[in-house]
Amino acid sequence: MFSCADYTFMAEAIQLAERGCYTTTPNPNVGALVVKKGQVIGRGYHQQAGGAHAEVFALQQAGAAAKGATCYVTLEPCSHYGKTPPCAQALIDAGVAQVIVAMTDPNPSVAGKGIAMLRAAGIKVEVGLLETQARALNPGFLSRMERNRPYVQLKLAASLDGRTALANGDSKWLTGEAARADVQHYRAKSCAVLSTATTVMADNARLTLRKEQLLQDVTHLKDGTLRQPKRVILDRNGILDHKQALFTDGGEVLLCVSKLENDRQLPNIARQIHCQLNNQAQFDLGLLLTHLAVHEGISNLWVEAGATLAGTLLQLNLVDELIVYIAPKLLGNTAQPLAVLPEFTALSQVPELSWTDIRMVGQDIRLTAKLT
Amino acid sequence: MFSCADYTFMAEAIQLAERGCYTTTPNPNVGALVVKKGQVIGRGYHQQAGGAHAEVFALQQAGAAAKGATCYVTLEPCSHYGKTPPCAQALIDAGVAQVIVAMTDPNPSVAGKGIAMLRAAGIKVEVGLLETQARALNPGFLSRMERNRPYVQLKLAASLDGRTALANGDSKWLTGEAARADVQHYRAKSCAVLSTATTVMADNARLTLRKEQLLQDVTHLKDGTLRQPKRVILDRNGILDHKQALFTDGGEVLLCVSKLENDRQLPNIARQIHCQLNNQAQFDLGLLLTHLAVHEGISNLWVEAGATLAGTLLQLNLVDELIVYIAPKLLGNTAQPLAVLPEFTALSQVPELSWTDIRMVGQDIRLTAKLT
Repeated sequence: MFSCADYTFMAEAIQLAERGCYTTTPNPNVGALVVKKGQVIGRGYHQQAGGAHAEVFALQQAGAAAKGATCYVTLEPCSHYGKTPPCAQALIDAGVAQVIVAMTDPNPSVAGKGIAMLRAAGIKVEVGLLETQARALNPGFLSRMERNRPYVQLKLAASLDGRTALANGDSKWLTGEAARADVQHYRAKSCAVLSTATTVMADNARLTLRKEQLLQDVTHLKDGTLRQPKRVILDRNGILDHKQALFTDGGEVLLCVSKLENDRQLPNIARQIHCQLNNQAQFDLGLLLTHLAVHEGISNLWVEAGATLAGTLLQLNLVDELIVYIAPKLLGNTAQPLAVLPEFTALSQVPELSWTDIRMVGQDIRLTAKLT
Repeated sequence: MFSCADYTFMAEAIQLAERGCYTTTPNPNVGALVVKKGQVIGRGYHQQAGGAHAEVFALQQAGAAAKGATCYVTLEPCSHYGKTPPCAQALIDAGVAQVIVAMTDPNPSVAGKGIAMLRAAGIKVEVGLLETQARALNPGFLSRMERNRPYVQLKLAASLDGRTALANGDSKWLTGEAARADVQHYRAKSCAVLSTATTVMADNARLTLRKEQLLQDVTHLKDGTLRQPKRVILDRNGILDHKQALFTDGGEVLLCVSKLENDRQLPNIARQIHCQLNNQAQFDLGLLLTHLAVHEGISNLWVEAGATLAGTLLQLNLVDELIVYIAPKLLGNTAQPLAVLPEFTALSQVPELSWTDIRMVGQDIRLTAKLT
């Protein structure tokens, strides 16, 4: 049984973990607290892949006082030598008496080994405190570990009548500045942005992170720690000629092609990846997502594309979350649709959602939903 | 200058007035408080057209103690003999020392007469306390008095992608039970529902008030005080043959026709009203709204119709408020549109809104907006 104080300390560890949300990928967000006689003597969170883990920061701050203390950590301490030595060993070396863990390592092949290592050293370990909240820190990392695919967030922007652009394509600016800044925050938390060559050509979209649009909640970040998300661009028909703004700066561009062209001269920033076609001669998006998770380490995938890709992902049940900005406008029945879907003959056949959040973002409304 | 206590008492009078929102039409909602030595000694609100006004109820409760008291009233006391004697006279007869009025009578031909009558009798009168809030009690009544047209609320229900029904017409049930009950409350507050013969034929819609769906906030109402809204049905082509469910019960049916047929045999519940056609051989909806306000005493008009009427009203700038239920579903690009509007060529041409409220209603989201 956990005490009231245990809940409080773990809740703080979770808050600490959240501070890494822009910078830890492909690693998870983790927070840790070292507590002795009811006093917090060390705080830490994982800041950046390659840097120290949360427990190490917290133990450093606690110093010699860590001996006999309790450590609260949002994820099972690691047991292997990676870019840093195992945290379980660091806890043993520091002489902590107890470790309370919110959740075990999601990777089935390593889960429990850190806990076993601690117990073998005589440390009391308890598991499962605020596990749901701890899981919510890392939907992308957990999806990659448990499902071999990224956590997929589909961004849409439409008028109240569900239209993304006028018949002639005009959509600048459907949503306001605050909504566009909000999108920047989602991009900043994502490992990669998925889009199509058609969208890139239509808007000459860069799909980069514009740091000047990010708000105050990133002011604690050290210079240089924010990374540009990769751009994963579906270009089945090879219509991109490398002259687009996309290729001038920002994160790596992964061009999805159905046939790798070994002699293709690509800008340094770009790389081809092969994606199999399905029976309808379309990219097999399920296979692509697996590839992105397993081979590219992409945990969080942010989709900004047109009605066709949006509809296809929805139909294939590959969307985990919808983020929809509703502009206070009506574009009318001739304007462009939000999602291309097959013609349904009964309401029981249509994709159903459950709302998870509704709020104002500047002049627009942001709705988020999960697929049910 | 008003004191803090003045604000508190007027706020309570406004709350009292709201209790009449289902029953006072065509009269406005009015609340009154009689206060002596900081104590409320009488409370009243207008309950029903033909019944006593708010001041009379409050004075009755105060009795002889009203002498020397202050009366707070949300609307200028009437000065004329209508269905009841003038309230200004009742206040004079009761011997109140002061009257604080939130707003003057909106009817330009009578505004100020009640106040003048009180002042002539030596009563101190102050005007304008919480005027904005008092005006918000009666958007329909004020619209009818000040603009000669009803306050028009357009109800829409759509999927997240702005579709009202599948291509085959299936829309049962797009929104959930809570949203449908919420609609009943809007109907209950309205003098009339505006719809079209096409909509009536498509759904065999009755557009009646189903009292069993109304929630607890009407439990203070006496039996029989809730009225069925009139149904104003546009039937330019005369497609209704009186066999529809609409004609079986509920409020009066006003059939809008372009040519009155004097020998037409109508059910008792129905009556023809003439509506002029415009140059496009469509009903002149601006003229119709004026007719409904001036000749039918309709203050609050609730529109439940299809995408065509919705679009026409929006284009003509005849909508005061949009009430939109968004169901957690996606119907796709072949499904039916929310509003038929002309093809715009620039975003600067489209109707713009400003959100006034967002909230969950059961499984659906309700957005309300005003046209800007």
